[in-house]
Amino acid sequence: MPIYQAPVRDTLFVLNEVLGIQRHSNLPGFAEATPDVVEAILSEGARLAQEVILPTNRKGDLEGCIRHDDASVTTPSGFKEAYRQYCEGGWIGLSVPAEHGGQGLPYVLHNAVGEYMAGANMALMMYPGLTQGAIAAIIAHGSDEQKATWLPKMVEGTWTGTMNLTEPHCGTDLGLLRTRAVPAPDGSYRISGQKIFISAGEHDLAENIVHLVLARIEGAPAGTKGISLFIVPKFKLDADGRPGERNGVSCGSLEEKMGIHGNATCVMNYDEAEGYLLGPENGGLKAMFVMMNEARLGVGLQGLSQSEVAYQNAAAYARERLQGRSLSGPKAPDKPADPIIVHPDVRRNLMTIRAWNEAGRAFMLWTALKSDIARRSADDKERQAAEDMLGLMTPVMKGVLTDKGFEHAVMAQQVFGGHGYIEEHGMSQFVRDARIAMIYEGANGIQALDLVGRKLAMNGGRAIQAFFKEVGDFCEEHRADEGMAPFTKVLKKGLNDLQAATLWLMQNAMQKPENAGAASADYMHLTGLVAMGYMWGQMAKAAQQALAQGAGDDASFYENKLITARYFMERVMPESAAHLARISSGADTMMALPAEAF
Amino acid sequence: MPIYQAPVRDTLFVLNEVLGIQRHSNLPGFAEATPDVVEAILSEGARLAQEVILPTNRKGDLEGCIRHDDASVTTPSGFKEAYRQYCEGGWIGLSVPAEHGGQGLPYVLHNAVGEYMAGANMALMMYPGLTQGAIAAIIAHGSDEQKATWLPKMVEGTWTGTMNLTEPHCGTDLGLLRTRAVPAPDGSYRISGQKIFISAGEHDLAENIVHLVLARIEGAPAGTKGISLFIVPKFKLDADGRPGERNGVSCGSLEEKMGIHGNATCVMNYDEAEGYLLGPENGGLKAMFVMMNEARLGVGLQGLSQSEVAYQNAAAYARERLQGRSLSGPKAPDKPADPIIVHPDVRRNLMTIRAWNEAGRAFMLWTALKSDIARRSADDKERQAAEDMLGLMTPVMKGVLTDKGFEHAVMAQQVFGGHGYIEEHGMSQFVRDARIAMIYEGANGIQALDLVGRKLAMNGGRAIQAFFKEVGDFCEEHRADEGMAPFTKVLKKGLNDLQAATLWLMQNAMQKPENAGAASADYMHLTGLVAMGYMWGQMAKAAQQALAQGAGDDASFYENKLITARYFMERVMPESAAHLARISSGADTMMALPAEAF
Repeated sequence: MPIYQAPVRDTLFVLNEVLGIQRHSNLPGFAEATPDVVEAILSEGARLAQEVILPTNRKGDLEGCIRHDDASVTTPSGFKEAYRQYCEGGWIGLSVPAEHGGQGLPYVLHNAVGEYMAGANMALMMYPGLTQGAIAAIIAHGSDEQKATWLPKMVEGTWTGTMNLTEPHCGTDLGLLRTRAVPAPDGSYRISGQKIFISAGEHDLAENIVHLVLARIEGAPAGTKGISLFIVPKFKLDADGRPGERNGVSCGSLEEKMGIHGNATCVMNYDEAEGYLLGPENGGLKAMFVMMNEARLGVGLQGLSQSEVAYQNAAAYARERLQGRSLSGPKAPDKPADPIIVHPDVRRNLMTIRAWNEAGRAFMLWTALKSDIARRSADDKERQAAEDMLGLMTPVMKGVLTDKGFEHAVMAQQVFGGHGYIEEHGMSQFVRDARIAMIYEGANGIQALDLVGRKLAMNGGRAIQAFFKEVGDFCEEHRADEGMAPFTKVLKKGLNDLQAATLWLMQNAMQKPENAGAASADYMHLTGLVAMGYMWGQMAKAAQQALAQGAGDDASFYENKLITARYFMERVMPESAAHLARISSGADTMMALPAEAF
Repeated sequence: MPIYQAPVRDTLFVLNEVLGIQRHSNLPGFAEATPDVVEAILSEGARLAQEVILPTNRKGDLEGCIRHDDASVTTPSGFKEAYRQYCEGGWIGLSVPAEHGGQGLPYVLHNAVGEYMAGANMALMMYPGLTQGAIAAIIAHGSDEQKATWLPKMVEGTWTGTMNLTEPHCGTDLGLLRTRAVPAPDGSYRISGQKIFISAGEHDLAENIVHLVLARIEGAPAGTKGISLFIVPKFKLDADGRPGERNGVSCGSLEEKMGIHGNATCVMNYDEAEGYLLGPENGGLKAMFVMMNEARLGVGLQGLSQSEVAYQNAAAYARERLQGRSLSGPKAPDKPADPIIVHPDVRRNLMTIRAWNEAGRAFMLWTALKSDIARRSADDKERQAAEDMLGLMTPVMKGVLTDKGFEHAVMAQQVFGGHGYIEEHGMSQFVRDARIAMIYEGANGIQALDLVGRKLAMNGGRAIQAFFKEVGDFCEEHRADEGMAPFTKVLKKGLNDLQAATLWLMQNAMQKPENAGAASADYMHLTGLVAMGYMWGQMAKAAQQALAQGAGDDASFYENKLITARYFMERVMPESAAHLARISSGADTMMALPAEAF
């Protein structure tokens, strides 16, 4: 049975000592988030994750979801009760504005707790996770009536949401989609077509399921310009707004997947289902992107969460498993062998994951705070700057944290040796679950292209220039600080590599866009590396300040932070040069083989 | 249903044009391996792999092995028949000396074909693969009577073999093992204890199973010095040497694993089983290492094979799946979208895997040829040089090709997007199967330690120095050749990094062995990188020679080799500097955290 301890102390360190969220008490909802409230929320979230959600995780993997002949779907045992408690705690609406039934607290808190929940059971948390994305889309694009009709029940969790984009012949390229919407006399539409890979498409957790569906209205333009977004409930609402007659949508089958067995991945068949236009006609893609951007941050968070839970289990195993002796002499001479944590290569795995997780957590919270500022600030300039950074970093958060999340789950599994490969210890599940995060909500190659092809050049590169300035200023500011030198020197080197890569793209990708495509994955990871290095720089600074002020019993917490920061600088940041070398090698060789030669 | 085409043309290129195996016709068995015979063997092996073995692969994953109440185990449907045809073809004994019933052909051919077989069904080929390891151990350490008793049936495949090392509390650290052997009056032993993770431990493919079991004879010294190796058959042999009475060994249960479902991974219970000492008393570890070294090369080959089959399926999908348009303008304007192979990031995945696979194949065959020379040459100096290189490169072959094999299976799966995550297309199976190769026969961390802690320093570093000289001479030899410059320059840079890393270890790891442990994984991968770069240098040279001589219809084959070689130099070799940076950062930070802080 896997263990999991929500990293509350670490979250608090980032929120209070690194990001200083109290500085933002002028933003709506932040004044309420006093230090006491924040700590209480995190602690209660941790309790729920550890005691209620975690015990359902392995059962979810083993049992999976079952589709019955009547097209209904049963979730694994324990899911219903855990979901009920999650809803009752008000967690879905933590950061949803009070006018829609939420608590209006900062989004950064929602994500802080979101890491714990996803760490405890990623597949289960996808049900409310998708609901949250649908809520965001309805808030952004719904009419007042639609908001009043759908949001309160969704915020409660009584109804869940889904995203219906993919069709058998069309995943990334939504311009190809065929699902059609025919206007009905009453102003609604009749939706027909088939959607695949619909997470949480059918299940037994909620009274109703609110599908957000991309479809093409009859006569709409071809391609992405003719796509509209529709609300299609599983049960149509009766005169009292309660689920009534069954709508023409059903689950045709469940996919057999590598992991996230606890989530029902459905083929959804729409047969003249009643749907309601959400947002403008033919404006569906833009409306869907509201949901998608929120979802991408959530998927990045999943990567972090799986990396963390896998790490914790590997660390516990490494402290207990006795095998071999330390290279520097026995450490447990009274035992038949030393615990394997004495072996440098086991440490290498653990330290690498840890160094990424702590930076990833800071980055995830830093990004979430940008989202709060972008949505809540009254200051245009501040809002725009936050929006810029959020847009730039969303693909990095999704692409980098999920690539790394999977890589780390594999490293943690490796610490278990053969015991990691059998299903008994649960390490295989973390690997299999983490794998999907690299794929869904836009495969990571698409994230990289979004960064390089879209976000980088927006507004004349304003966002990336702001990032360069922020990181450069940080290095400059601490240039004379000897204690910070081990961090700022390496960070500056990484920043230089990123700037050189950006310059190379400016000079080489305009005329030849394939140079951008060929550079994209490395550029995304290089940006992520510098962003994590920047997080480590800030965390090192905060740790040094705390130690200088006399941290008392907490001293070891801060000392460990500094050790882990050094590890990141010594062992992870050197990759920046290899990324730059690959980026500047261009597309020519990559594209040279004829397709038939593959 | 996954596809697989054995890369016969590529194997022939390496054997004939790069390694020039015909030059070794003075070695026993090589004179018989004329170019015609080699091509016929590879073609027949390819046919068997594609037509007979491949169709069993997916069934093996879906059905798995079943243990019945009587402790018997049934393999997936189709395995028996495919195994029968494999045995009838004489493939097990291809390179086994004729005196033991084999064909005495070069080991390099055995491995060439081994790649095809493992590519077609890794889990199935583990049954004869373990038999081959057991055959090697019996040839090396068995008495004449033991050889006569066991080998002929094993070479036929009528009986299979296993390796029994691991116990619940002891994997890597065999000194802890507890299985005991009590001498019986007739000179045999009674073996009792429990072994776990025993691949092919029980099944229905063979008449008998010959377990090679590590155990401790009563009164033997503690630790690894008191371990002996025993032959323990499932059925004791009757007076005619035929399987007779059941021995005291049985399968207690099957492990539920992440992959290789077609292979029965057994808990084996030994209850006063009759066993026969193989090799000297207390010399079991050394005897087991004969088997282990052979097995490690075989596992490296599995990594390559999974990378290749995953690549082929991803390439086929990328040529057919229509999604999006090329960044340089539509390539299939008559279709609704271009095939995704036009997208640089899809190419990046495919080219990276391809560049590694072709180098890995050359490296695997180069290493196997060293094994042939080490075992068959009459020239002491040549034999020793080959043995040195084989010993040095065995952990590299195992560790690097399996780490990369898994990584590439994941990359190939990524090309499929969401379709790669569902089990239907078989990409998940390649990932799940490839994962074990990083773990068994010594987890890759152990391979790295074997390289850095043992192989590197043996005989005063003779092996690595010989490797430096060979690669250095190659670069020097082609220094004036402009066509070779893109390859030798980068290779030389990689070699310099490896030499610097070696020097760093010499200066820093003697006094402080943890510096070696902390460097080991990076050092292994850096060695692998330079070895692959060297293979690409040689392949580029051979391709240029062929083109210079007018390759006719084959020109595109050689041109593609040069493109892929360039890709490796531009996109893969730059990692060498990051490895060196990490290695020379030492162990201090890695080991600084107290164990309880993890």
